[in-house]
Amino acid sequence: MTAGSIFLWELLGTSVLVMLGTGVVANNVLRRTNGNSTGTLFVNIGWGFAVFTGASLGAPSGAHLNPAITLGMAVADKTEWADVPVYFLAQMLGGVLGAVLCWATYKLQFDDHDKPAATLGIFATEPQIPHKFWNMVTETLGTFVLVAFVLFSPGYDKGQGGIPDFGNSALGYAGVAFVVLVIGTSLGGPTGYAINPARDLGPRIAYAFVLPIKGKGIAQWGYSWVPVFGPLLGGVLAALLFLAYPAA
Amino acid sequence: MTAGSIFLWELLGTSVLVMLGTGVVANNVLRRTNGNSTGTLFVNIGWGFAVFTGASLGAPSGAHLNPAITLGMAVADKTEWADVPVYFLAQMLGGVLGAVLCWATYKLQFDDHDKPAATLGIFATEPQIPHKFWNMVTETLGTFVLVAFVLFSPGYDKGQGGIPDFGNSALGYAGVAFVVLVIGTSLGGPTGYAINPARDLGPRIAYAFVLPIKGKGIAQWGYSWVPVFGPLLGGVLAALLFLAYPAA
Amino acid sequence: MTAGSIFLWELLGTSVLVMLGTGVVANNVLRRTNGNSTGTLFVNIGWGFAVFTGASLGAPSGAHLNPAITLGMAVADKTEWADVPVYFLAQMLGGVLGAVLCWATYKLQFDDHDKPAATLGIFATEPQIPHKFWNMVTETLGTFVLVAFVLFSPGYDKGQGGIPDFGNSALGYAGVAFVVLVIGTSLGGPTGYAINPARDLGPRIAYAFVLPIKGKGIAQWGYSWVPVFGPLLGGVLAALLFLAYPAA
Amino acid sequence: MTAGSIFLWELLGTSVLVMLGTGVVANNVLRRTNGNSTGTLFVNIGWGFAVFTGASLGAPSGAHLNPAITLGMAVADKTEWADVPVYFLAQMLGGVLGAVLCWATYKLQFDDHDKPAATLGIFATEPQIPHKFWNMVTETLGTFVLVAFVLFSPGYDKGQGGIPDFGNSALGYAGVAFVVLVIGTSLGGPTGYAINPARDLGPRIAYAFVLPIKGKGIAQWGYSWVPVFGPLLGGVLAALLFLAYPAA
Repeated sequence: MTAGSIFLWELLGTSVLVMLGTGVVANNVLRRTNGNSTGTLFVNIGWGFAVFTGASLGAPSGAHLNPAITLGMAVADKTEWADVPVYFLAQMLGGVLGAVLCWATYKLQFDDHDKPAATLGIFATEPQIPHKFWNMVTETLGTFVLVAFVLFSPGYDKGQGGIPDFGNSALGYAGVAFVVLVIGTSLGGPTGYAINPARDLGPRIAYAFVLPIKGKGIAQWGYSWVPVFGPLLGGVLAALLFLAYPAA
Repeated sequence: MTAGSIFLWELLGTSVLVMLGTGVVANNVLRRTNGNSTGTLFVNIGWGFAVFTGASLGAPSGAHLNPAITLGMAVADKTEWADVPVYFLAQMLGGVLGAVLCWATYKLQFDDHDKPAATLGIFATEPQIPHKFWNMVTETLGTFVLVAFVLFSPGYDKGQGGIPDFGNSALGYAGVAFVVLVIGTSLGGPTGYAINPARDLGPRIAYAFVLPIKGKGIAQWGYSWVPVFGPLLGGVLAALLFLAYPAA
Repeated sequence: MTAGSIFLWELLGTSVLVMLGTGVVANNVLRRTNGNSTGTLFVNIGWGFAVFTGASLGAPSGAHLNPAITLGMAVADKTEWADVPVYFLAQMLGGVLGAVLCWATYKLQFDDHDKPAATLGIFATEPQIPHKFWNMVTETLGTFVLVAFVLFSPGYDKGQGGIPDFGNSALGYAGVAFVVLVIGTSLGGPTGYAINPARDLGPRIAYAFVLPIKGKGIAQWGYSWVPVFGPLLGGVLAALLFLAYPAA
Repeated sequence: MTAGSIFLWELLGTSVLVMLGTGVVANNVLRRTNGNSTGTLFVNIGWGFAVFTGASLGAPSGAHLNPAITLGMAVADKTEWADVPVYFLAQMLGGVLGAVLCWATYKLQFDDHDKPAATLGIFATEPQIPHKFWNMVTETLGTFVLVAFVLFSPGYDKGQGGIPDFGNSALGYAGVAFVVLVIGTSLGGPTGYAINPARDLGPRIAYAFVLPIKGKGIAQWGYSWVPVFGPLLGGVLAALLFLAYPAA
């Protein structure tokens, strides 16, 4: 696949993933929505199927949609290193674009919100208890589970440059949705499970520099590197385990 | 497939879709039901699997069940333009019939309800914050995601006149259910995600002219064109993107 | 398949279905359980996957597990009429046995319950607003959707005497689970969606004559025929529609 | 498959299963998490997809991840008795390792918790109403359903030493997830559905002897044998029924 095609498919998939994922948090947090204060299970289910939808759209490029998956795929020798920068760039731009589309969907609610300074959490993750090392452990473990699933699980083709083969099925990515759902319910408690640098840094950049939200808060740059390097480390660890394990 | 067969399958699928979709809102809104005040996730899950069930029944005609999908399919050259009016007519009549079946299911609860003037929301969508332009943006984006999934996702046959091929599987439409679920959780906050002109206008017509609900409220015709043209625009935009994208 | 084999598979599937389905209501209703007062979505999800589990176990006989499905299959010429009494008998006995297993699971909670006279609803359905005709309409429509899905949906084999063929898949019955889930969320508000005479009458008989619950209430025999004949009528109507529709 | 490979795959699958399963309870129970007090459905969904994820990772060894499944498989002549101790050892060690990984994920929350003596329930099950015989009945019935599904359901290969064959599908284990989910909603009320000796005893050992939780409570050893022998008995009963039933 050409670099241009990889770019287009990853951009499409990631922007829809992030639009839907940040959207469920907006629905839960903002007032005068149908979903206000519905709760954590609602948010976890929304994020799970946000990944399903984005992945279904980005299937031709392997639906990485996440630099941690791309890096893990490259370490596991399933994606060419030369393509890695193209994946990264498209994913980051998709993260920014998805945040803009979420904002457009909820534009009236953002204008009406009573606590505009507390809206960063719609777009980027924040830890419940800040602690660089243990927050990093949490993000690394969550991403390890995600990337290990992609590398180990049956049904993902392991020999075509990272492009999964689900045959004639629209449902193959439901498996990833279920894994993202359970990472949310089970490992998302402390840090909000970024588990994807593009999903966190892209919308954080959009929040800080692009979105015209009056009275918006700060972007918490001091924490921002944790949901970037934690996931990347988790992806590498999963790939190293994959290489060390016996053939299935 | 003959026009008569298309009509019958779309009518069956859409009427069941709308009966089940409006039914979960009735269960949530009306008093003296088992589901009273269960909440937004309940409604989102109900609508998602309402689409699964209707689509499984309407599979022979491609299970469009939605003028926005039919229009997107026609623009993408997957459905013949000559068939479009047949799809539209069956979908609209299915929307009316589904609303009547929902009313019959909850007839005793409608008679008993303490706020009959506030029952339009069971059948048709209303915005949380009315604003023609931004409500239209929200409906357009939600429908864009739905129609893009149908056009882009693996598993949908892209060469048989809009008829998906899931092989010997009753589960193919689960993918659409997951997408409708996440559109609800993530993009449904501001306007209630009509994302389907027949699902909104058909029941609105039934509410205004057919259903014998004592003390019922007005049908909000001033807003009614937004959940018609927003979804149609979203379907066209998804089809244009599909035509512009490189082959998968 | 021999009558004896049909009997054994339907007995296994129905008893597990009813054990799990009545179990989620017990978990929700009884005190000193982990699931006390979790709510309607919890109950709907439990019943949906109760059907998935029972159907997966009863697959060899077609996993009817429901006289309304068996009758609809017979009317649609997919099950031999000579086998119908065997199906019915096994399903009814499975309903009784499943209720006993549910009681055994929650034996300590039944002994401890503060309102033993209000425990019929764990085992059998009761209408929110009693009215023979409209309660019957609700049960008929709900079962129509279920049996129509089984007869019309792709994936169910339509030529082997009612035995579905999902190929080498443990997941085929997930479709039925999704349909039962949405019937619960959307049509279950007024009557509690028996949609299955064996699921309702079997446990009702167990409650009245078998289960040793101290201080238990009455079995509401005056209502008991509605969740028997409503579902049977819905199954017949679905089969007649199936016969009238054009080939897919 | 060599004993070493069985050991590695079962260790990987069980440790991820237990990490995710105990994680959702930690998220629900501990304070200063995103999921605090979300409720029983949240916990049931988390455990269901924890099993999906662990099973997808442990697929090469058959994804038993549970001594009750291994014992049932051996009784049913699908797993060699010589391999049983290897399965058991890997599963128990996976249970301990998973608990440690859960603790690491929530380390800051454990340090901050106001009731550290009441944290056993995150790792191991406790009955709502203690009673050795009836608690055992509940655990036996729950595990019977799980192992019966694995042995009876279509899609699981019944002739390759317990290794399921889902073809090229990442979704085969979704069926097990659905069954674990419904066992939770429906049979989990009285005892918390251990239904797996390794899932209960492994984390209990970790809690008692490994995890550095200040002020932690006692491990309830008096009850600990119930969630070991109840599940083993349920697995054997399911296998005996499988052997007694006619060929499908």
